[in-house]
Amino acid sequence: MTIPAERLTSRSGWRARLHEIIFESDTRAGRAFDLALLTLILVSVTAVVLESVAEIRREHGTLIEAVEWTITALFTVEYILRLVAVDRPGRYARSFYGVVDVLAIAPTYLALVLPEARSLMVIRAIRLLRVFRILKLAHFLGEAQQLLRALRASRRKIIVFLVAVATSVVIMGTLMYLIEGETHGFTSIPVSMYWAVVTMTTVGYGDIAPRTPLGQFLASVLMILGYGIIAVPTGIVSVELARTTRGTSRQACPGCSAEGHDEDATHCKYCGAAL
Amino acid sequence: MTIPAERLTSRSGWRARLHEIIFESDTRAGRAFDLALLTLILVSVTAVVLESVAEIRREHGTLIEAVEWTITALFTVEYILRLVAVDRPGRYARSFYGVVDVLAIAPTYLALVLPEARSLMVIRAIRLLRVFRILKLAHFLGEAQQLLRALRASRRKIIVFLVAVATSVVIMGTLMYLIEGETHGFTSIPVSMYWAVVTMTTVGYGDIAPRTPLGQFLASVLMILGYGIIAVPTGIVSVELARTTRGTSRQACPGCSAEGHDEDATHCKYCGAAL
Amino acid sequence: MTIPAERLTSRSGWRARLHEIIFESDTRAGRAFDLALLTLILVSVTAVVLESVAEIRREHGTLIEAVEWTITALFTVEYILRLVAVDRPGRYARSFYGVVDVLAIAPTYLALVLPEARSLMVIRAIRLLRVFRILKLAHFLGEAQQLLRALRASRRKIIVFLVAVATSVVIMGTLMYLIEGETHGFTSIPVSMYWAVVTMTTVGYGDIAPRTPLGQFLASVLMILGYGIIAVPTGIVSVELARTTRGTSRQACPGCSAEGHDEDATHCKYCGAAL
Amino acid sequence: MTIPAERLTSRSGWRARLHEIIFESDTRAGRAFDLALLTLILVSVTAVVLESVAEIRREHGTLIEAVEWTITALFTVEYILRLVAVDRPGRYARSFYGVVDVLAIAPTYLALVLPEARSLMVIRAIRLLRVFRILKLAHFLGEAQQLLRALRASRRKIIVFLVAVATSVVIMGTLMYLIEGETHGFTSIPVSMYWAVVTMTTVGYGDIAPRTPLGQFLASVLMILGYGIIAVPTGIVSVELARTTRGTSRQACPGCSAEGHDEDATHCKYCGAAL
Repeated sequence: MTIPAERLTSRSGWRARLHEIIFESDTRAGRAFDLALLTLILVSVTAVVLESVAEIRREHGTLIEAVEWTITALFTVEYILRLVAVDRPGRYARSFYGVVDVLAIAPTYLALVLPEARSLMVIRAIRLLRVFRILKLAHFLGEAQQLLRALRASRRKIIVFLVAVATSVVIMGTLMYLIEGETHGFTSIPVSMYWAVVTMTTVGYGDIAPRTPLGQFLASVLMILGYGIIAVPTGIVSVELARTTRGTSRQACPGCSAEGHDEDATHCKYCGAAL
Repeated sequence: MTIPAERLTSRSGWRARLHEIIFESDTRAGRAFDLALLTLILVSVTAVVLESVAEIRREHGTLIEAVEWTITALFTVEYILRLVAVDRPGRYARSFYGVVDVLAIAPTYLALVLPEARSLMVIRAIRLLRVFRILKLAHFLGEAQQLLRALRASRRKIIVFLVAVATSVVIMGTLMYLIEGETHGFTSIPVSMYWAVVTMTTVGYGDIAPRTPLGQFLASVLMILGYGIIAVPTGIVSVELARTTRGTSRQACPGCSAEGHDEDATHCKYCGAAL
Repeated sequence: MTIPAERLTSRSGWRARLHEIIFESDTRAGRAFDLALLTLILVSVTAVVLESVAEIRREHGTLIEAVEWTITALFTVEYILRLVAVDRPGRYARSFYGVVDVLAIAPTYLALVLPEARSLMVIRAIRLLRVFRILKLAHFLGEAQQLLRALRASRRKIIVFLVAVATSVVIMGTLMYLIEGETHGFTSIPVSMYWAVVTMTTVGYGDIAPRTPLGQFLASVLMILGYGIIAVPTGIVSVELARTTRGTSRQACPGCSAEGHDEDATHCKYCGAAL
Repeated sequence: MTIPAERLTSRSGWRARLHEIIFESDTRAGRAFDLALLTLILVSVTAVVLESVAEIRREHGTLIEAVEWTITALFTVEYILRLVAVDRPGRYARSFYGVVDVLAIAPTYLALVLPEARSLMVIRAIRLLRVFRILKLAHFLGEAQQLLRALRASRRKIIVFLVAVATSVVIMGTLMYLIEGETHGFTSIPVSMYWAVVTMTTVGYGDIAPRTPLGQFLASVLMILGYGIIAVPTGIVSVELARTTRGTSRQACPGCSAEGHDEDATHCKYCGAAL
């Protein structure tokens, strides 16, 4: 999305200005555009959400439809402007946000031919993800990045953890299918695995629950296991967050060799020597 | 609530004394008043809670009503005294605690005209929040402040986290509404979003539960996601608590007046001067 | 339970020996006694647990009864020996373990007169707590104490946390009682508070669940709140555990003033000076 | 599984080569074999899982049966090759993986005589555990080991924790059995203990739920208890992970050979020698 300076200057003035407003958000106009867009997305998502409620659809159907057509029109204009503003429209059209933009407007037009396509309009909710692009600019940048960095740093530990969870789910699901059987709701191994996930994550709907003593005992073991397993990702993230947050530099004091200084420190906190 | 010294002295003696008893809590009389008030609030809330039980209302209705009228009278007197004790009664009346005080006594009087207003008396439970003002005085001050400081310091991370949760809830709610449909209890997107919150927070009532294989698969993904997400706020708070607990000392550097030094620091980390 | 040396010697030899076997557990005989006792308690609790299952009671009733009588006899002998072994039997009889010992044998005798008293035998399960006394001796001493120390150190933070939870439960319980009302299962404020606890702790039985849109919205807020609140005790305990486990001494290095040395360190890890 | 070098050389060339492919995974051929095996296990487990779904069994039964027979044949060949490759086939046959290998192929053959034995084929899921052997080779080695080391280091604290949980479950299960009784679903103490586990781990199916006010109060206490108890294992694992992650370096002191120094240490903490 960042464009080399030389190419920016080669664009005609109004396109550069358009690009600035639509894609950048560190200028005043850009920020205003982003906020307006976010508001529009929120209104549009709210309209889709409310339309799904039978009563509201019956009473305010025409209003909601008007709002949806207005927003679809605005989104269409915005999409065209985006294609105009960038140097390589084809590349933008194939990018993640480009595809989402089309998906956000397509259902309304499609519904003219196929009325059933209307409900696809909810795809628009994915546009909510733009909120992250807008947040990125504000003071949240550092915070969100810290969280992401902590998650990325613990990537492998999380994969090991997920593999362990998946294996437990397959084995426990299979065992419970054999023990409880179809008469107690464990109608197949996939359903049984769904039950294992519901149990291990401590969600526990209760739509499927063990009835036999052996099944209840095994379920108890799985619960305590799942309970203990909560500890693992929490521990991983805590440790990584602590590390990325504290941001202690790796620099040793030239005076006393002490380490663990804060990143903003300019003198050793133990002996006062300049770092 | 703190009043400049000069103004305090300008008040007549008994009003200053009254203010001391009702609003301060570091004198003996003030502490006694606070404890008496807290007891009264607890009795009053217990009365409201018990009155809601049909059996108890039938058998001890008159007693409970007597208790409520007595407490309402005492709260009315207390409210008048508060208005008298402060220099700007209008400002207190519009403050949070001032409004709560009126809300706590109004329903009983209103019930004389509109008997249905009685049940509003439960608003009184909000007065329980005064317990925090009273706890503030005791040894809990430091502890509660540490918790609050940790929460305030991680304010932005928590907002990023809540935005992520909200976006997931909207998207998953919409998807499940499309997949499961109205016949399986996902009657509208708002209801579907409610289900997503119930699932992600691992509450899992089971009043709404997926029935189709695809829905159950998606729900499993959401559960494991929600499970991992528990780790994030826990990690945030742990790290902040560790930091605030570790205790940066309140000492300012004699050289450059910088604050926020670690408790084990013997030299200023900014200018190197001995602390 | 520890007895001054002079008094120990004043006791006749066999009583001192008896005391050693029954109360101490650092001698071989004492350890053997403790293990035997623990086994007996486990057998006895298992018997009580199994007797509650209708089928097992019907088929193995006589056997279980025999086991219970045998164990009651052994427990009675043990109780008498304990009273003989200590210098102040009255004080032991009134101590926590003394009372539990009587409660553990009384129901069997009572059942001779009142057959219904039999079920009280389950009180015996409390004797399981003795397992902690026995574990204390083994290598678990340090670990259990670390956990307890961490919990004790965070005592006040936990109280602040519990007060916050209790206030939320009262306020949310009251609100939901007003919103959902008796027709949706929120029959009284206490029941509504029970629902609030079930929801906030993410247990979510689903025996009571909100039906109105406003109730479902409020419940969602409570869930996310409860979700975030999980973070608080976890953070508290993690921080305290980290502190008590690391056991860094507060000693500063005489050479470079660095702190944060491990408790077993004899030299500064930064400059090598002897601590 | 590791074999002394002298013995390896004494084996004939092709057996050493076979052993390398099947048992080691740091050569190219070994890695390819492991990946192929893992894929086969996944396909086989998927087949077993899908076969349990009535519809799929009806429509694709013949295909699935063909897949199962092919894989059983391949697993049989693999098992024979494993026995040939090792020096002591008897010892391998009795090892954990050896037994699992037989269990993975036996049901298909057994089903020729006893058709009911077919469902035992799911035992094959246990073969999924091999994934850990394969992951061991990749970059995950260090991460998985860190997790395991953290768990092993907190072994005793976890046992103390489990004993506390078990005691609570027995006592609370017994109390609820006495309070709620058989009419409210607490049909026996074991069932009641199952309910206590379901509640304490915050799973909360709702298949059994307290109905009496006292039972609901006690359940609320148990929930808040269980809620707080989540904190304990999380705290334990976080602290241990932080410690193992922080990384005491593997460097031994040149002065006194002591190990376990912090990574930022420049002098031995036991004798003060420079590291």
